Amino acid sequence: MKKITVGVIGAGRIGKLHVENMLQLPNILVKTISDPMLESAQAWGHERGIQQIVPDPQLLLDDPEIDAIFICSPTDTHVDLIKAAAKQGKHIFCEKPISFSDTETLEAYEAIKEANVKVQIGFNRRFDKNYARVQQCVTNHSIGQLHILKITSRDPEPPSLDYVKRSGGLFMDMTIHDFDMARFASGSEVTEVFVTGGALVNPKIAEVNDIDTAVISLKFANGAVGVIDNSREAVYGYDQRIEAFGSKGAAESRNEQETTVKLSTAESVSEDQPLHFFLERYNDAYICEIRAFFEAILTDTKPPCTFEDGIMAQRIAQATKESYETKKPVSVKFLS
Amino acid sequence: MKKITVGVIGAGRIGKLHVENMLQLPNILVKTISDPMLESAQAWGHERGIQQIVPDPQLLLDDPEIDAIFICSPTDTHVDLIKAAAKQGKHIFCEKPISFSDTETLEAYEAIKEANVKVQIGFNRRFDKNYARVQQCVTNHSIGQLHILKITSRDPEPPSLDYVKRSGGLFMDMTIHDFDMARFASGSEVTEVFVTGGALVNPKIAEVNDIDTAVISLKFANGAVGVIDNSREAVYGYDQRIEAFGSKGAAESRNEQETTVKLSTAESVSEDQPLHFFLERYNDAYICEIRAFFEAILTDTKPPCTFEDGIMAQRIAQATKESYETKKPVSVKFLS
Amino acid sequence: MKKITVGVIGAGRIGKLHVENMLQLPNILVKTISDPMLESAQAWGHERGIQQIVPDPQLLLDDPEIDAIFICSPTDTHVDLIKAAAKQGKHIFCEKPISFSDTETLEAYEAIKEANVKVQIGFNRRFDKNYARVQQCVTNHSIGQLHILKITSRDPEPPSLDYVKRSGGLFMDMTIHDFDMARFASGSEVTEVFVTGGALVNPKIAEVNDIDTAVISLKFANGAVGVIDNSREAVYGYDQRIEAFGSKGAAESRNEQETTVKLSTAESVSEDQPLHFFLERYNDAYICEIRAFFEAILTDTKPPCTFEDGIMAQRIAQATKESYETKKPVSVKFLS
Amino acid sequence: MKKITVGVIGAGRIGKLHVENMLQLPNILVKTISDPMLESAQAWGHERGIQQIVPDPQLLLDDPEIDAIFICSPTDTHVDLIKAAAKQGKHIFCEKPISFSDTETLEAYEAIKEANVKVQIGFNRRFDKNYARVQQCVTNHSIGQLHILKITSRDPEPPSLDYVKRSGGLFMDMTIHDFDMARFASGSEVTEVFVTGGALVNPKIAEVNDIDTAVISLKFANGAVGVIDNSREAVYGYDQRIEAFGSKGAAESRNEQETTVKLSTAESVSEDQPLHFFLERYNDAYICEIRAFFEAILTDTKPPCTFEDGIMAQRIAQATKESYETKKPVSVKFLS
Repeated sequence: MKKITVGVIGAGRIGKLHVENMLQLPNILVKTISDPMLESAQAWGHERGIQQIVPDPQLLLDDPEIDAIFICSPTDTHVDLIKAAAKQGKHIFCEKPISFSDTETLEAYEAIKEANVKVQIGFNRRFDKNYARVQQCVTNHSIGQLHILKITSRDPEPPSLDYVKRSGGLFMDMTIHDFDMARFASGSEVTEVFVTGGALVNPKIAEVNDIDTAVISLKFANGAVGVIDNSREAVYGYDQRIEAFGSKGAAESRNEQETTVKLSTAESVSEDQPLHFFLERYNDAYICEIRAFFEAILTDTKPPCTFEDGIMAQRIAQATKESYETKKPVSVKFLS
Repeated sequence: MKKITVGVIGAGRIGKLHVENMLQLPNILVKTISDPMLESAQAWGHERGIQQIVPDPQLLLDDPEIDAIFICSPTDTHVDLIKAAAKQGKHIFCEKPISFSDTETLEAYEAIKEANVKVQIGFNRRFDKNYARVQQCVTNHSIGQLHILKITSRDPEPPSLDYVKRSGGLFMDMTIHDFDMARFASGSEVTEVFVTGGALVNPKIAEVNDIDTAVISLKFANGAVGVIDNSREAVYGYDQRIEAFGSKGAAESRNEQETTVKLSTAESVSEDQPLHFFLERYNDAYICEIRAFFEAILTDTKPPCTFEDGIMAQRIAQATKESYETKKPVSVKFLS
Repeated sequence: MKKITVGVIGAGRIGKLHVENMLQLPNILVKTISDPMLESAQAWGHERGIQQIVPDPQLLLDDPEIDAIFICSPTDTHVDLIKAAAKQGKHIFCEKPISFSDTETLEAYEAIKEANVKVQIGFNRRFDKNYARVQQCVTNHSIGQLHILKITSRDPEPPSLDYVKRSGGLFMDMTIHDFDMARFASGSEVTEVFVTGGALVNPKIAEVNDIDTAVISLKFANGAVGVIDNSREAVYGYDQRIEAFGSKGAAESRNEQETTVKLSTAESVSEDQPLHFFLERYNDAYICEIRAFFEAILTDTKPPCTFEDGIMAQRIAQATKESYETKKPVSVKFLS
Repeated sequence: MKKITVGVIGAGRIGKLHVENMLQLPNILVKTISDPMLESAQAWGHERGIQQIVPDPQLLLDDPEIDAIFICSPTDTHVDLIKAAAKQGKHIFCEKPISFSDTETLEAYEAIKEANVKVQIGFNRRFDKNYARVQQCVTNHSIGQLHILKITSRDPEPPSLDYVKRSGGLFMDMTIHDFDMARFASGSEVTEVFVTGGALVNPKIAEVNDIDTAVISLKFANGAVGVIDNSREAVYGYDQRIEAFGSKGAAESRNEQETTVKLSTAESVSEDQPLHFFLERYNDAYICEIRAFFEAILTDTKPPCTFEDGIMAQRIAQATKESYETKKPVSVKFLS
């Protein structure tokens, strides 16, 4: 069986997660990790037997032994890295969002089309078995024709203000997963968005021109309508649900819990809270995601979550931001 | 204990329901029912021991023995009947909506203020124990400050096109209950609405200039945001749920079911569908509603669901209709 | 429509409950109530418009206008009252158990067979929609052939020691409902029982030679096996569940709750406890039960819960008591 | 970190499962597998990079490099292998049951006590998070004092008659897990058992003197009572639940499901069946189980599931068999 040699750019939380998962896969060799915080990355990487930990991503890009690059560095580095990796003919797994700028994202798009490399964008939730099941209920028409799609997506705790400032805003940082899910689960394009919301969790978020609570109306190309509701802080845990309602029924997913145990006492009947964060909840999905990427490379097929998917999620986020600023519904620009 | 003598105008589905419920209450005498379909009303009423069944509501309004009037006739008759009943000093229970016209509703409002009679509008869902519990969780701050309010309200089957034509449209006919619930559960005014939707259940509904599927974004005066999703046809039953999400948690209600039985077989694990329609689901709420009305009369206190509540629900419905026509968010006019 | 005139013997908790329910039914007249605590019974009865409240049941038995007798007095009075009522040709609704003695119960049995009156024993749970649904799943073979029947039956709080002393013991007082349910739900006779248990809730119950916690194994004539578990105190509420498991699946009922609301906070995810006691939980079942009795009278058909059912439940209770005393499995005596 | 070298005896379903799991663990080297079906074991083992696949377990037992032995061969080989491994000073992980004979099991017990090696018996369910949570609720008195323990344990499909013949019977083969769970979850010894059951799934099982359906009453040393219900065939999946009821409440676990998705249609409201078999349901528990064994070796502490636990589960199984044969309650022999 063919072995795939991988280089990972960025050893932050998500970079480390992908490396840990790749270490479990047979036939995948994580050869090199690059990170500017060299010492800490080395300490972490050597413990896991990674051969090379380097400060500069160029060393990975230039390494002819490396077949595929994982881009897990900050968003503002993505486009340059995609262009460079494509030039070197390397397959690319890139975290979301591709960039904060449609123009730059399209430049990267041109580069990867020319290079004819495999590209997958990190929309891990598509690989979660609950979301996948609801999507199948839409696809196989168990619910008939889709009429209403509802996504609840609430984080367990708000990020730091520092993070918020650099994040690209709620829609680009957090809701982008939901925008992708809306397209994935509906099997249709989002054509128009309208948002209402505010900085209800932390008023200081308003000072950096962002919000933490939102209700976003969606219109789909196939006539269906939808809504996403977001919060940066659900104190009871990571709240991740979806409901697809159609002419023949509805499919909805509940949250996952650590155990199925119910405790009944004189005071209350209680059960476990939702799994606390994305690392627990989407653990299996992250593994399926990279398996799918490597499978696409090995079988020379299209990855399940494409660059085009990344462009569209980014455009919906941009339209939503515009809706927030103009207080009006905004159309989403399509790929021609 | 004081007896209250009641006259009921309109012996359609909802009029009959109120009469049946009043027949169970001690100290309430249903003396007279008026309905233009005299024969059928007589057959029904005499079987239940109602003394007088008459064609003309004036006979009730003029009867000095009658203390309270239930207005269960078509919406376009409400305003005149309210004015006439108020003039006669009769307490009034009026079905929703008060009217299709803000001007006319305000005329009725003047009349009842002058007459100083008790008026209650038929927003029965406030009296459902599930909705009431969620509302309490907001009021007593079990969920902290309200951030997001979500209402799902879907009928089990669409009305006839004939009904739709006379209904005042989806928002005035069906969503008006949800608009009232949004105000009740949030303890705040709705300040702005935006709707997206279509005639997805039955395209013929578009021909009479109405829709059957909608997602309505809400802004509240207290800063919270919300969403209502509606469908005229949920094939699996009457889908009636609410979720209040706030700074300290979330309270959500599931649908009611006939039994708690779960059947597990080689094919599936299944349970009961939601109770099929409003008569089953809100049976207890309808009884509580009229009990509250009579209680307000007997104790000379304000009924729990006032004329002002009726005005505001109607105005939100009108704003939503305008939003649908203009494809823009629309502000809701407040009572000065 | 024919009117049925009723006399009620015993105005304790269950007697009052039946009277309240009968007052809601058209065509049923509660003419007379007898109770030795005359004053308190009069106060209660007159408030509800009952014509005669008397100290001595003989007055009811002798009244030719009375069609049916409800026997709600202490168990040790049942047999004499049944015999007397049967002699007078009155239909009989008798609370469980019929008596504490098989011989006496059989004497009463002879009396009612001779008199050819309708007799129904008060096994109200048969009329609960959840139990009825599970029973239907057995009857209509949704679960195939029955293999295992499990009944959980736990009271929310233990009775007083005084009550326990007069109660006939756990099996005759409390489990007798479960014994009847075992026969009803299985559609088969219980042939053998074995019990293990103790006075775990309150050791003083052991001093009066009774227990408060039990696990009772059952063998059925149709080959199935079963188990009942009992406790006099489930601190979280009235725990009433059943599960029927068979060759093609399983049907199980959960407890009923006041609302369907789930509250999620930083501390816990909680829902309502089971409905607290039999008055709440079996409210509808008590009404259905007496409706069925009156229906049997009016249509001259067999009541759904017969004297024979009462005998058999009593015999299973007696066998279980013997099993407890001998620490061995004990066969149940059948009706020849 | 110290490396542990392992030899595995028996490459059947459970042996392979343990090997697969060990291959995922760092610092564990599976050096040798022995199996009489050499060719098939070699094909399987070489694919996974196992160095030696041999026909005779003696080669493992004699290998001084091997620290620990996994005994996954048929039950009738266990005792000799345990004695031999103990003699060689090897740590032992042995599948359940230890043997079919109390005398032989005690011989093995002497051997391991003398040799002072670590021994763990394969009661994997103790490591399942749902069972562990319920056990904690007992241990930490969230439910107060334990009064009733209920275990439901039903396989999704019956084994072949050939397997049944060699299995030692339902109690030794299948219920033994539940007997261990009863001791684990209650924190107490089972002192007496009584069983009722039959060959309801497949009458041919009766011909080989076994049953496939059982209800087993339990008495515990701490005064609590309990019940286990078993079936060899739950057509809807692997049904694995537990409920601990006590003076201050109850803790119960539901089955695990593949997804949390609920599908509502005009026909039904359905959800996923229980996970189909032990490989899916106890996947994580099997990994935790061997981790705990290796942890005990590395830290020189007592393994969490001891030889004594194995003896006691076996004795309860033997007592239950005697109860089935004598149709009487039977006391369980304790370790002196």
